[in-house]
Amino acid sequence: MANFVKLVEEPLDVAAISNLVVAPSTGATSVFVGTTRDNFEGKRVFRLEYEAYESMAVKEMEKVCARLRSKWPDAHGVAIYHRLGVVPVTEASVVIAVSSAHRKAALEAAHFAIDDLKANVPIWKKEVYEDGEAWKENAECKWSKKNADSR
Amino acid sequence: MANFVKLVEEPLDVAAISNLVVAPSTGATSVFVGTTRDNFEGKRVFRLEYEAYESMAVKEMEKVCARLRSKWPDAHGVAIYHRLGVVPVTEASVVIAVSSAHRKAALEAAHFAIDDLKANVPIWKKEVYEDGEAWKENAECKWSKKNADSR
Repeated sequence: MANFVKLVEEPLDVAAISNLVVAPSTGATSVFVGTTRDNFEGKRVFRLEYEAYESMAVKEMEKVCARLRSKWPDAHGVAIYHRLGVVPVTEASVVIAVSSAHRKAALEAAHFAIDDLKANVPIWKKEVYEDGEAWKENAECKWSKKNADSR
Repeated sequence: MANFVKLVEEPLDVAAISNLVVAPSTGATSVFVGTTRDNFEGKRVFRLEYEAYESMAVKEMEKVCARLRSKWPDAHGVAIYHRLGVVPVTEASVVIAVSSAHRKAALEAAHFAIDDLKANVPIWKKEVYEDGEAWKENAECKWSKKNADSR
């Protein structure tokens, strides 16, 4: 019943993160991988760059795990890894893995975790286009306005 | 927009299967991994063994992809790999990966794919316990009765 929460600068290893949550008692692991897309609203994107106030982001990622576990007590292992720094097109910025004995809990909880992370974890994203760049807060983010005011 | 459907005898490589469906245009990949559990209804399980009439199973796996694509036209790549033969505890018997530009389609479609596979793809499972073994059809399987009669 462990949580694995981490911010890393290196490429994310999907298989290793998935394996963190697998146990003899689990039969299902659901993994979500968020990757850099080459376009955003018609603009060509070359890469993304992520930045966070790390201790605060980790604390919020742990809260995602706690909310997940209160909704899916059958979840076994939960891993949330987010990459910081430059993430080229097709590479992963976030990997979430949730395991459970039966598949329903793992599938639903992993879906919840990425939605909750996008809404609540303060990680900033810079989009680098062919003709410039822009720092973005996630459109879904509840903290968006608040943090924009205090930055 | 490719489908990758395969039955293999070797251990399944989660990262490689996930990478099959990632493309510059996709931002989300949802991966489901089904692993052997060490127990079934209180009995200790040592390993599972899977068997299939391969050409029929592959045809049915392709139908899962077709149904998925009719429901989620935004799905980009779809991979369904199933292992045959002995699968020890904690190792994967099935890996499903679905990618899309935005996460909703990938998450929903991967969930659909494992449910649909369990209901429709004729792959038999032998559970090897400490005190014996039993061939099982999936409890969810629509073809269960029909195939039991003709075996």
